[in-house]
Amino acid sequence: MARWEPNAPERLAHAALDLFAERGYENTTVIDIAQRAGLGKTTFFRHFQDKREVLFGRGMMDELLAEAIAAAPATAGPFEAIAHALDAAGGAVFTPARREFIARRQTVIAANPELQEREALKNLALIASMADALRQRGVPDLTARVAAELGALASTIAFERWSRTTADDDFSKLARQALDDVQASTALC
Amino acid sequence: MARWEPNAPERLAHAALDLFAERGYENTTVIDIAQRAGLGKTTFFRHFQDKREVLFGRGMMDELLAEAIAAAPATAGPFEAIAHALDAAGGAVFTPARREFIARRQTVIAANPELQEREALKNLALIASMADALRQRGVPDLTARVAAELGALASTIAFERWSRTTADDDFSKLARQALDDVQASTALC
Repeated sequence: MARWEPNAPERLAHAALDLFAERGYENTTVIDIAQRAGLGKTTFFRHFQDKREVLFGRGMMDELLAEAIAAAPATAGPFEAIAHALDAAGGAVFTPARREFIARRQTVIAANPELQEREALKNLALIASMADALRQRGVPDLTARVAAELGALASTIAFERWSRTTADDDFSKLARQALDDVQASTALC
Repeated sequence: MARWEPNAPERLAHAALDLFAERGYENTTVIDIAQRAGLGKTTFFRHFQDKREVLFGRGMMDELLAEAIAAAPATAGPFEAIAHALDAAGGAVFTPARREFIARRQTVIAANPELQEREALKNLALIASMADALRQRGVPDLTARVAAELGALASTIAFERWSRTTADDDFSKLARQALDDVQASTALC
């Protein structure tokens, strides 16, 4: 078997999702996942630290969002910088081609408390990463934390709408709408 | 041993905290915790579903916050209702008498990814519970979610300040200040 495995993380994630759906998360081992993907256990652990991690893609999302916030125009306020980050997520992660995979992934996570816990922690890391990127733009600490928290909520709402819609709405458009809705709601609190 | 054990959950939490600090979370079993508390394993599982859970007190916080939101004056807006909830938390949970226990608990959680994950999930449950209590007061869905999210952030900020302060500031006062600060920050996003 070649040492370099094209798309190994994606293949492992798809294999894991199939197996979790077929026989349950508890009844699936790392070896099962690697085998189903046509890969070895060593390759699995080169990409993921444990079984839970296979559905959470190595923290690439943190970097994606932080880089997009850093790259936003200097004139952009915190929410506008976050809109750029959610654009980037829409372009790389929440794409039409990945919609079915993501929907199945959410179903598996929702059925498993261990995966829900890991997702909750990952979500905190995303918020921290966005807040940090905003602070590096000179946004004051508390404003950065508030904007990152509300940005994450807008992203969740956009994701819910994107999952439900049958139309060909792209995620970026829904994310901007959700950010506007969230911002309008803050005035009513 | 009597079947009725006064303060069993508290005794178990204190015993667990001592043991986690002494020998590490991984090297402590449920039986160790029960023994240290002078209780049996059966009593442990009557109160907590697993070892992780012992530091998280059976979801009482969810009810405490939800009941305080429900009991807030009819004229109170979402943030004001949340201020009542944080008052209740200050009166029952973040008390001067519990300050040292809570600080030690945070140190143990921060050192252990499994406990961090459980805490992250508990935090989501608290936010969901507050949002639900607000909806039951007639607050529109999105506003309820935004207010609950910002209320949780204000609570975290108040907790950070409460943990750091050497003065005799009570949590409720810090929570109202944090809610005001968070609200002011939303205008800058």
